Parts: sequence; C-alpha cells; structure tokens
Amino acid sequence: MARAVELAGRGHGTTSPNPVVGCVVLDAGGAVAGEGFHVYAGGPHAEVVALAQAGERARGGTAYVTLEPCDHTGRTGPCSRALLDAGIARVVVAVADPSPKAAGGAARLRATGVAVTMGVLTGAAERVNEEWLTYARLGRSHATWKFAATLDGRSAAQDGTSQWITSPEARADVHRWRAGSDAIVAGIGTVLSDDPRLTARPAVDTGLNTGLNTGLNTGPDTGPDTGLNIGPDTGSADVRAPLRVVIDTEARTPPGARVLDDDAPTLIAIAEDVTTDLKADLLRLPRHDGGGLDLHALLRELAAREVVSVFLEGGPTLAGAFIRQGLADRVIAYLAPALLGSGRAALGAAGVETIGRMHRLTFDEISPIGPDVRLIARPIAQPGREQ
Amino acid sequence: MARAVELAGRGHGTTSPNPVVGCVVLDAGGAVAGEGFHVYAGGPHAEVVALAQAGERARGGTAYVTLEPCDHTGRTGPCSRALLDAGIARVVVAVADPSPKAAGGAARLRATGVAVTMGVLTGAAERVNEEWLTYARLGRSHATWKFAATLDGRSAAQDGTSQWITSPEARADVHRWRAGSDAIVAGIGTVLSDDPRLTARPAVDTGLNTGLNTGLNTGPDTGPDTGLNIGPDTGSADVRAPLRVVIDTEARTPPGARVLDDDAPTLIAIAEDVTTDLKADLLRLPRHDGGGLDLHALLRELAAREVVSVFLEGGPTLAGAFIRQGLADRVIAYLAPALLGSGRAALGAAGVETIGRMHRLTFDEISPIGPDVRLIARPIAQPGREQ
Ligand SMILES: NC(=O)c1ccc[n+]([C@@H]2O[C@H](COP(=O)([O-])OP(=O)(O)OC[C@H]3O[C@@H](n4cnc5c(N)ncnc54)[C@H](OP(=O)(O)O)[C@@H]3O)[C@@H](O)[C@H]2O)c1
Ligand SMILES: NC(=O)c1ccc[n+]([C@@H]2O[C@H](COP(=O)([O-])OP(=O)(O)OC[C@H]3O[C@@H](n4cnc5c(N)ncnc54)[C@H](OP(=O)(O)O)[C@@H]3O)[C@@H](O)[C@H]2O)c1
Repeated sequence: MARAVELAGRGHGTTSPNPVVGCVVLDAGGAVAGEGFHVYAGGPHAEVVALAQAGERARGGTAYVTLEPCDHTGRTGPCSRALLDAGIARVVVAVADPSPKAAGGAARLRATGVAVTMGVLTGAAERVNEEWLTYARLGRSHATWKFAATLDGRSAAQDGTSQWITSPEARADVHRWRAGSDAIVAGIGTVLSDDPRLTARPAVDTGLNTGLNTGLNTGPDTGPDTGLNIGPDTGSADVRAPLRVVIDTEARTPPGARVLDDDAPTLIAIAEDVTTDLKADLLRLPRHDGGGLDLHALLRELAAREVVSVFLEGGPTLAGAFIRQGLADRVIAYLAPALLGSGRAALGAAGVETIGRMHRLTFDEISPIGPDVRLIARPIAQPGREQ
Repeated sequence: MARAVELAGRGHGTTSPNPVVGCVVLDAGGAVAGEGFHVYAGGPHAEVVALAQAGERARGGTAYVTLEPCDHTGRTGPCSRALLDAGIARVVVAVADPSPKAAGGAARLRATGVAVTMGVLTGAAERVNEEWLTYARLGRSHATWKFAATLDGRSAAQDGTSQWITSPEARADVHRWRAGSDAIVAGIGTVLSDDPRLTARPAVDTGLNTGLNTGLNTGPDTGPDTGLNIGPDTGSADVRAPLRVVIDTEARTPPGARVLDDDAPTLIAIAEDVTTDLKADLLRLPRHDGGGLDLHALLRELAAREVVSVFLEGGPTLAGAFIRQGLADRVIAYLAPALLGSGRAALGAAGVETIGRMHRLTFDEISPIGPDVRLIARPIAQPGREQ
C-alpha cells in the first residue's frame, strides 16, 4: 500500500477535479503484476492502468488501492467492474470514497464475492489526497496559505520594499505549487499595491510532483522521480492554467490590472450588493459579519466550479481572515536566513488576543530550499474554534 | 582530522576560557594509537591525552590536532614539548593559534625537525571552535542570540502573555545552550517585565554536548554520544555556573530582582556616569551614541573577565541593537508550529529601512526539536555594515 500511496502522489497537481489514486496489483503468487496511478481527469483510473499492465496475471490476485474503487460510469467505466472483469480475488483499500456518486465500489465488490479490506495505511493515503478529500467531504475548496518572510516573520522592510526576501529556488518552488493548484487567490490589497499576475509561470521542467511529498521530509528535495514512468507522461497531460481569484469586496480592481490579462481565467469575488461596471467574471458573495466577504461561501462557490485546491498568496490581511476562520488547511512558510526587525508582518490580525488562543499547527515537512527553509504545517483541531 | 574535530566538539561548553581541541595520534604504520580532547580548563590538553593513550606507539607517528599545539607553560606544560618527547614525526594542524601567548607551537616543532602541515579541514575546525576563536581573534566575547517565536515571528500575544509558545523539548534545549555558555545576558526591559532567574537549571542529564553540533544537521538530534569516552567524564568536570549579566543603563534593576539571588554570580552593566546605591557587582560602561550602553565595550569587558561565550536571551530591543551593531555571531531561532498574527515581534528595530539593507545570514542547522523547529544561523559579512 505504501507503494500505491507513492504512485498516487505522482498524480499531484494534475488530476483535479478528480482525486489522486494509486494502485498496485499482485498476482495470485503475491508478485507485483501491475502498477498505475490516475494522471488527469478523463484519463484512465489507477486500477485500469494497473490491471492493463497485469493482464492475465491479475486473475486470482490482489489489488491495493489508495481510494475505494469507484462504482459509477463517469468519463471512464466503473473501476469495480474492471476489477471484477480482471478476476481480482481480493481488494485492499486505504480510504473510503466520501463522494456519493462514486462510492459503493467496496459493497459492489463484496456482493460479488471479492474479499475487501478497508482502512489499510489510511493516514498516509489521506495525506496524499488531502486536497480532494477536503473538497469531497466538506464541499469546499482546500486552501493552502503560502508566505515568504525573514526569520523574524517580516515580509517587507519599513519602506515597503520586499524584493527579494527569499531565493530564486524558493520562488521556483512556489511556482510549482501554484501550477499544481486549481486557483490562485489574492486580496485586493495585494492587487492594488503589487499588481501581480498570479500566474504559474511555466518552468522549463514543469516538475509538478516536486515538493508535494507527504510525510516529514527533513532532507533536501529528492529531485526528479527515478521510478518507472507508469501511465501517460505527465508533461503531455492536459493541465488547466490555475484560475485567478481576487477577493475584492467593493470591486476596486482596476480595469488595467494584470490579473485581468489573457494569460489565465480570472474571477473577481465581490459583495452581492455592489454595483460595478468592471468588465470581468464576477463572483457575487455575501458579506462576512466581521467585514469583507464570506470566505466559507467563497470556498463553497469555488468548489461548485470544480476548484479542488486553492493557493492563497496573501496578503497578510486576507491570510489573517483565513486563519481566524479555520479555512487555511495547510500553511507553507518560506523563511529566508535574514532579519529585518521592522516592516510589514507576514500575517495580519488573526483574532488572537491571548496566548492560550494561539492558532496551533503541526509541522509536516521541514526542508531546505536553496539557502532558505520551507516549513509545511497543518492546523491542529482546537476545541471551541470557528471552523 | 574529521575525527579530531568530532572529538573537539565533545569539549563544548566546559573548556572555557580555553578552546575546544581534539587530537588523534596515528602510529608509524598509520593505525589509530590514541585519541583525546580538551575537557576543562586546567585539565590535560587533547594532545597529552592522545599521546598518553598511544604510549610508545606514538614514536615516528602522526598527530592530527584541530588547533595549533600550544608552546607555553600554563596550567599544563606546552604541548609542543609533549609531542617532541613522544617522538611524533609529523603534526597536522587545522587552525593556527591566534593567541599571542600560546602560539608558536608549529614553529617550535618545525625547528626541531618535525614535519608540520597547517590548514587541513580548517572550515570544520573553525566552526567547532567558533566561540573561542572569536574571543581570541577579536578580543571580545562571542555572542549567540536566541529567540523563541511562532512561525510568524511573534514572541507574545497581544495581551503580553507568552507562556508557552515553544515546547518543553525546546526549553530543555535552551537550558543546555545556557549551561554551555559563560554568561547569560538580558536587557533591563526583560528583567523589569519578567523578573527571570537567568540560570541554567541543571537538567537530569546535563547533556552539554547535545545540540551544539556543527555543520548542516537536518535530521533530529542524534542523542547521547555513543563513541568512546575519552578523557575524564564530562559530568565530573568543574563547570562554572554561567555569569548573569543585565544590560541596565540607568541602574534600574530592582534590589529584589531574582537575577540578584545567590544561584549564580551576576553583573549589572550600567552607564559610567550613573550614581546608584544598588548592591550588586557593577560593570561601568560608556554610553552608545544611539542610546543605551556601548555593546562593543560590554563584550570586550566580558572577554577581559574570561567570558568566551555570551548567550543573549533578549528582549527584542537589546537583540535589535546586537544585530544592528553586527555583534550577534550566531542566531538560534526556536519556531513553534503556531500563528499569532499580532503581539510582540521577536526582534525589535535593527536599523533596517529598506530591503537591500536587510541583515543576511546563512543557515547552519535546521533541526526538529520536539514539535518545534530550531534554526541556527550566522551572519554573512555585508560590505558597509557597522561591525
Ligand atoms: N510576502 C508575501 O508572501 C506576500 C504575499 C502577498 C502579498 N504581500 C503583500 O501584502 C500587501 C497587501 O496586503 P494587505 O494585507 O494590504 O491586503 P490583502 O490581504 O491582499 O487584501 C485585503 C483586502 O481583502 C479584502 N477582503 C475581502 N474579504 C475579506 C475578508 N473576509 N477578510 C479580510 N479581507 C477581505 C478586503 O478589502 P475591502 O476592504 O475592500 O473589503 C481587505 O482589505 C502588499 O504590500 C503585498 O506586497 C506579501
Ligand atoms: N521570546 C523570547 O525569546 C524573549 C526573550 C527575552 C525577553 N522577551 C520579552 O521581551 C520583553 C522585554 O523586551 P524589551 O525589548 O522591552 O527590553 P530588553 O530588550 O530586555 O531591554 C531593553 C533595554 O536595554 C537597555 N539597553 C542598554 N543598552 C542598550 C543598547 N545598546 N541597545 C538597546 N538597549 C539597551 C535599554 O534600557 P535603558 O532604556 O535603560 O537604556 C533598553 O530599554 C519582555 O516582555 C520579555 O518577556 C522575550
């Protein structure tokens, strides 16, 4: 199953709105007969790839799958059927499928005499698929907040200058994360002050998998995968350019803003009650009691548009609101070995007055990235918090 | 030589005001015949320990020493003589001795026909001995600034509460660093607000070596040493309780402050021109142009009292002054996986107005410590900076 989870991870950043899934098929004697992972929506499912590779050797064998095989006919046929047709005797599943339309694969397999074991290596399989599981279970997009700062937590000097705190290596890493996200989100403050493009500039090596490892990785990035290249080449997959989203209550986005160029689609989220003649795709949202837009509603609306994962680029005000409302599912900090002692803080007000109410996280990964360090953390559930 | 550097590191925190030194003696055939390191001032030097272990096997052999063997008779005899007496044919040295009274060992050895090679593995040997080399070369104490903060660089919440941001493991690690320092320094702001003891509470395992590794260490601490225990046991060494130093321009330290208790000696640094009836050991220092005391003078005066290494506990104002004046030789950040978004910043004004003048460092070590991360960094020389 560990191998299946590893395979699943290779689909990271390209499968949306589908989950990442990995599958290993063993023959009746227990030898590996086939491996596969899901590469892009519309492409073959992991089970189908692995079964095709296994061929006749699948008969009487065992399939390890990171996510419960689907039981519906979507763009591809149901995997439960493919497993039955191949003569698989036993299916081992890490995580049950939470989506109503695809679930039921395990029951279907059991009903036809296949032995099904659920819950094997669930933790790792949940982790590798966290974006999609959040989306499927909560009906909202999964959000990653990224920030770049000095060791003392500053994102700009006193005079507002901020280029460049982190290294080219760290910035390239950010672009890989952006490219692997369905949407890139920024606040109107950032748009007005920096006029960013919010695109995932294509790197020479698209390297979509790099940096999206699971588990505590305290060593340097392992670089390009060295394993077999299973399934179609990632480079040729039909990867959507991430949607750009500006959180702009009063529709203040300037008509000439770079986010409105043709490089990628853009959505301007504004309050329901605002009248504007801004020529852009608008997403009208309710206002939040605490000011600004309702960010829960934002992530639900984005999910309805099949945006599984959102990459929140800031600024500090918007990030503070995401943190306060428990909507940052992952935090990625790029810290430069540098000190400022003054200037803009990386994070704005996050609703904490006293230390006992501090937002607690846990580190998943600590990795050197060039001269900088990248820390990936996730929130710990805290009782009594707004979620 | 790598082994000699490793041995030298074992003396960390106990040799002051002497350097740490490691020595490996090979016999004429190239086999290891003896190993040693300097454990405490007044105790035998590394060379003497290694030679004693090698005995007759040293004759015609090679000695690898991390620091040029001394040529003066201090509390122990000159090592140059011991090497000659043992019949060593060749001496390999990593770092030349910068102290006028002890230097000259290499010349003495050469004069009597011993082959001497200088400059082998100098980088690592400088690193392991950085406190003492700073002290010996610059005539001032080496300063380490430590801070504990959230991932977004805050050391206290909005209401001033700050216990506990980091974990018990991180705090235990801080106590090991304190215990390995000659002095613990805090500003009067910290004394007035927190009334700290500034002692190195003895841990059950004194573990003086732990955490004081050199080189980039991205994995978890390796724990207790497993190698041979060479030389007298560290536990029995005569370790001085670190001196406590309060930086208190106007002599505002309250007579009942905990730093004035009997647990360790204390020095209150005040301005030359201040009259006070405070009953404490006073260190009178010139004022600095920018306000407060002259911190260069402070570190020179401490060096004159054989304080090789200083552990700066803050607060943010004093730390900002050390950073601005280029007097923080090492920075240790304990970052908790937590976010505050407001509250006291870890570092106060450090004289940076624009990003190009940011204080640049380089990471030496990145290590998980319990749930937290410890980052050890050192400043990069920047042209045009106050040093
Ligand atoms: N170092 C980094 O990683 C990084 C990344 C990005 C940006 N930045 C910097 O951040 C600065 C801009 O940040 P900023 O804090 O001023 O602005 P911001 O966070 O980009 O945007 C804040 C604005 O978003 C709108 N908003 C809508 N709904 C909201 C809600 N629920 N909660 C909070 N805000 C909501 C509000 O506009 P209304 O007032 O109109 O409601 C608010 O003023 C720039 O200087 C930029 O350079 C740094
Ligand atoms: N999280 C942590 O790691 C940590 C560690 C320690 C302290 N703290 C917190 O820090 C807070 C206190 O910090 P603080 O910034 O107010 O005070 P501070 O840094 O402890 O002390 C600052 C004072 O030191 C004196 N000083 C003398 N010479 C100086 C010089 N050259 N440069 C700068 N200062 C000089 C000045 O007093 P005069 O005005 O009399 O000249 C100055 O006001 C406390 O709340 C404490 O809890 C946090």
